[in-house]
Amino acid sequence: MRMVDIIAKKRDGEPLTKEEIDFVVEGYTKDDIPDYQVSSLMMAIFFNDMNDAERADLTMAMVASGDRIDLSEIDGVKVDKHSTGGVGDTTTLVLAPLVAALGVPVAKMSGRGLGHTGGTIDKLEAVEGFHVEITEREFIDIVNRDKVAVIGQSGNLTPADKKLYALRDVTATVNSIPLIASSIMSKKIAAGADAIVLDVKVGDGAFMKTEEDAAELAKAMVTIGNDVGRRTMAIISSMEEPLGRAIGNALEVQEAIETLKGEGPEDLTELSLELGSQMAVLGGAAETLEEAREKLQGVIDDGSALEKFKVFLRNQGGDASIVDDVSRLPQAEFKFEVESKTSGYVEEIGSEAMGIASSMLGAGRQTKDDEIDLAVGLMLNKKVGDRVEAGESLVTIHSNTEDVEAVKTKVLENYKIGGDEKDIPLIRKMITE
Amino acid sequence: MRMVDIIAKKRDGEPLTKEEIDFVVEGYTKDDIPDYQVSSLMMAIFFNDMNDAERADLTMAMVASGDRIDLSEIDGVKVDKHSTGGVGDTTTLVLAPLVAALGVPVAKMSGRGLGHTGGTIDKLEAVEGFHVEITEREFIDIVNRDKVAVIGQSGNLTPADKKLYALRDVTATVNSIPLIASSIMSKKIAAGADAIVLDVKVGDGAFMKTEEDAAELAKAMVTIGNDVGRRTMAIISSMEEPLGRAIGNALEVQEAIETLKGEGPEDLTELSLELGSQMAVLGGAAETLEEAREKLQGVIDDGSALEKFKVFLRNQGGDASIVDDVSRLPQAEFKFEVESKTSGYVEEIGSEAMGIASSMLGAGRQTKDDEIDLAVGLMLNKKVGDRVEAGESLVTIHSNTEDVEAVKTKVLENYKIGGDEKDIPLIRKMITE
Repeated sequence: MRMVDIIAKKRDGEPLTKEEIDFVVEGYTKDDIPDYQVSSLMMAIFFNDMNDAERADLTMAMVASGDRIDLSEIDGVKVDKHSTGGVGDTTTLVLAPLVAALGVPVAKMSGRGLGHTGGTIDKLEAVEGFHVEITEREFIDIVNRDKVAVIGQSGNLTPADKKLYALRDVTATVNSIPLIASSIMSKKIAAGADAIVLDVKVGDGAFMKTEEDAAELAKAMVTIGNDVGRRTMAIISSMEEPLGRAIGNALEVQEAIETLKGEGPEDLTELSLELGSQMAVLGGAAETLEEAREKLQGVIDDGSALEKFKVFLRNQGGDASIVDDVSRLPQAEFKFEVESKTSGYVEEIGSEAMGIASSMLGAGRQTKDDEIDLAVGLMLNKKVGDRVEAGESLVTIHSNTEDVEAVKTKVLENYKIGGDEKDIPLIRKMITE
Repeated sequence: MRMVDIIAKKRDGEPLTKEEIDFVVEGYTKDDIPDYQVSSLMMAIFFNDMNDAERADLTMAMVASGDRIDLSEIDGVKVDKHSTGGVGDTTTLVLAPLVAALGVPVAKMSGRGLGHTGGTIDKLEAVEGFHVEITEREFIDIVNRDKVAVIGQSGNLTPADKKLYALRDVTATVNSIPLIASSIMSKKIAAGADAIVLDVKVGDGAFMKTEEDAAELAKAMVTIGNDVGRRTMAIISSMEEPLGRAIGNALEVQEAIETLKGEGPEDLTELSLELGSQMAVLGGAAETLEEAREKLQGVIDDGSALEKFKVFLRNQGGDASIVDDVSRLPQAEFKFEVESKTSGYVEEIGSEAMGIASSMLGAGRQTKDDEIDLAVGLMLNKKVGDRVEAGESLVTIHSNTEDVEAVKTKVLENYKIGGDEKDIPLIRKMITE
């Protein structure tokens, strides 16, 4: 088999066989095939796409390129959730105890944040004592007993994907549906998921700018999942504004607690219930999405979801008393209000800009080795569609420095106030097969 | 300027600016831009093409990447000819003295053959004493005095093209009209041509399989030439069979002599007159192609073309007496006839296969360092359209070994004899602007 023939085949619009895809992925992982041939193939795929079989084969070839997490000792269907990247996205913190409260095992492998999006582990570490450095044995035992645990990324998962992504990043081939879909799915499958729920973000602040593109990506991932024996569902949700009101680690933990009490922001609550319903159905805790939603509402109402969160924190060394007394979470020294210059309706809030503003306060890291400040961040007092009068606070800045002028400017520049009372539907579409 | 942005621009179908093309070609030549980004760009060009301005810019960027031959001391318009690669293509040997006999300067830089196509220098070296190791000074003086000389390739011409071609070869991006056209044109321009005549081969044995593709390539090159101030014309000619009857170095010299006497094979004569007419017009020796053709026929008829060939050989140390006594050319020890097994009409002769058969006898080299046998080769006794009876000779093998079974088999396998009296027009199209 010659790589140049495989490139020519894809260039000419013919589908590649499983053997050819395995040859490429294995050869590239082992450095037998040079970057310049792979980048040429990636560009040919950008133009000529891959059919369903090729996408499934590429996904599984990347899974096979490295270690695989074995969760078989955990009883039940292990459902994993993936979001294509959001700002202030607290859903994982809410979903983990919420779904576990229905008896669905949540064995979550998570990472730290980089750039303007926060990482789940960073957020959880705002709880004193909480840590993810547990052994795989402990991880499995905790999930079997209490249905929920989070562990840090370990092992050499999907090295082919890492190498391919780095290459695509510098050769203008990131933006290709089959390549994005197989990349995401391979990571979830290597991490041991039996079933997968996807939250594909759409909008200005998201990777997918249009609903059509987002639907295509979601459909692609759902098809891959089902083709390789992992039941998969997806939601397409809006990123025209940050999700919820909190951006920042401790602030988001507090917001998660409120949401688990049934007192969270409407959009975060709604998305958590929708994603949670899909997870519950895939996990076998309900027959239909409607039934799942009712049950989830039940565990919020009766307090068992919140109780599960406490157990979860405690199991991993965390101070669970913060759930009943959020003032025990790290607190910033200063609060500043960002006041609106004009009156009108909030028409748009730049999600990425809010993420960057929060990073500027110290909530995010620019390089892997940066220390982050768990207490700082933003609380959005006004969301899209809200009426605001000149002088009213749009955002409360939680800061450990008094010099927040640049952050204020960033926030103001990215709040669009206008005459229209805009209503952005949060959940755009559900793709269940 | 970032290479990844340039790739994305071309990927999205936007034309590149001269500055961007210069950035790519300069950066790649200097190893500042890695192979993997360039191969990705080449594939994007394969899909999204380049417009006329981009093609001209790419050509001139490659010219600027290395040395340029300065022929300005030679009086008149220096017209160069390029063929996209043929078997048994003796036209350069015919054209050089033929056109020079009209007073058009032929300052030819030539190469040696590799694989199944012969090189002009190899053929000329079948003439005892002939050599191309002359200084640039001698070269210019000879052309000014006698209008014709051949020199070996020297200097570091179009290194960007060499590097790009090597990369395209292993990344399935050879077959792209803008890339092929700019590659060919850059080499001719760097070699000092003021005007260019192109012979684009079409057919099974050629790089371009259909007349449509060949016309597209020819038009692309003519447009580039005219856009960068080099008047350019092209012919599209058939490669459904080898040109002329001779394949092999000394055999082709003998055939060239016959053609210059007006006694050559019909197809070689016709192609030489057509290409020669374009060269004569571009070189200013005639106003129209018709006038040029008449003048060329004149110098064949009055013997001055043949005389010019003698002068040409003598100027570069060659034994010109071979022109009057071709038996003084290297002669093979053995001759074998390849007899037809069946009766009918010759419908097709595999050009590449005949080139390979000739190479098997020792007429061609497989690697740069191979010694070649100047005497051996094939004489085609039957051409496409000819009637042949079983037992009649299709080909005469000129060999220095008695073991020619493999060559016979190769020849027989690639002569298609059938019931149809096929007539393949040689000149398919002329593109003069």
